[in-house]
Amino acid sequence: MKTNQPTAALCPRFHRAVELIGRRWTGALLRVLMNGRRRYSDLKAAIPDISDRMLSERLRELEAEDIVRRIVTPDTPVRVEYELTEKGAALEGPLREIGAWAEEWIPAPQA
Amino acid sequence: MKTNQPTAALCPRFHRAVELIGRRWTGALLRVLMNGRRRYSDLKAAIPDISDRMLSERLRELEAEDIVRRIVTPDTPVRVEYELTEKGAALEGPLREIGAWAEEWIPAPQA
Repeated sequence: MKTNQPTAALCPRFHRAVELIGRRWTGALLRVLMNGRRRYSDLKAAIPDISDRMLSERLRELEAEDIVRRIVTPDTPVRVEYELTEKGAALEGPLREIGAWAEEWIPAPQA
Repeated sequence: MKTNQPTAALCPRFHRAVELIGRRWTGALLRVLMNGRRRYSDLKAAIPDISDRMLSERLRELEAEDIVRRIVTPDTPVRVEYELTEKGAALEGPLREIGAWAEEWIPAPQA
């Protein structure tokens, strides 16, 4: 363990990024969207424990951050889907690394 | 954007990992400890906005997760330091990737 390196000032952009990704259900939601465009009902099915209120709130937040894009197709009934923007898709690397760490260090849940 | 991949079941280990790293101040704290062992007062100095209560709580949580180790040196006065365990040090990859993403996609704060 290195002990004599100076303590770097905390980077506010890193701080913002890590807390954004780690916000309740956000990591899960991003991981599902990494597989492609999804309807609201697909997201609910993939993350059964999330409430409707929470899912809508997270999607709105991610839209506001330009990480997720909402696509409305004028069909009957109207089709609403969500997909990652370029900024959102660029989170693949961080999420993959977190997944690899989890595989190695977080014990598998008991069956 | 891929649209026709199946929606994978959410991995609970990934979910746990991403929310652990993203917990308020945890990413910041881990990033400081990546530079080596630190005293409590060094951590406070590196993250000036964190309250004492929050810092203690986060350190206790990270100890309980075996991510951070508390080292007590019987000196006068007793010296208490914190360092990453092997599990904690293995977060370097994920944190580096998050930092790289933030550099590219999060705007720099206004001066």
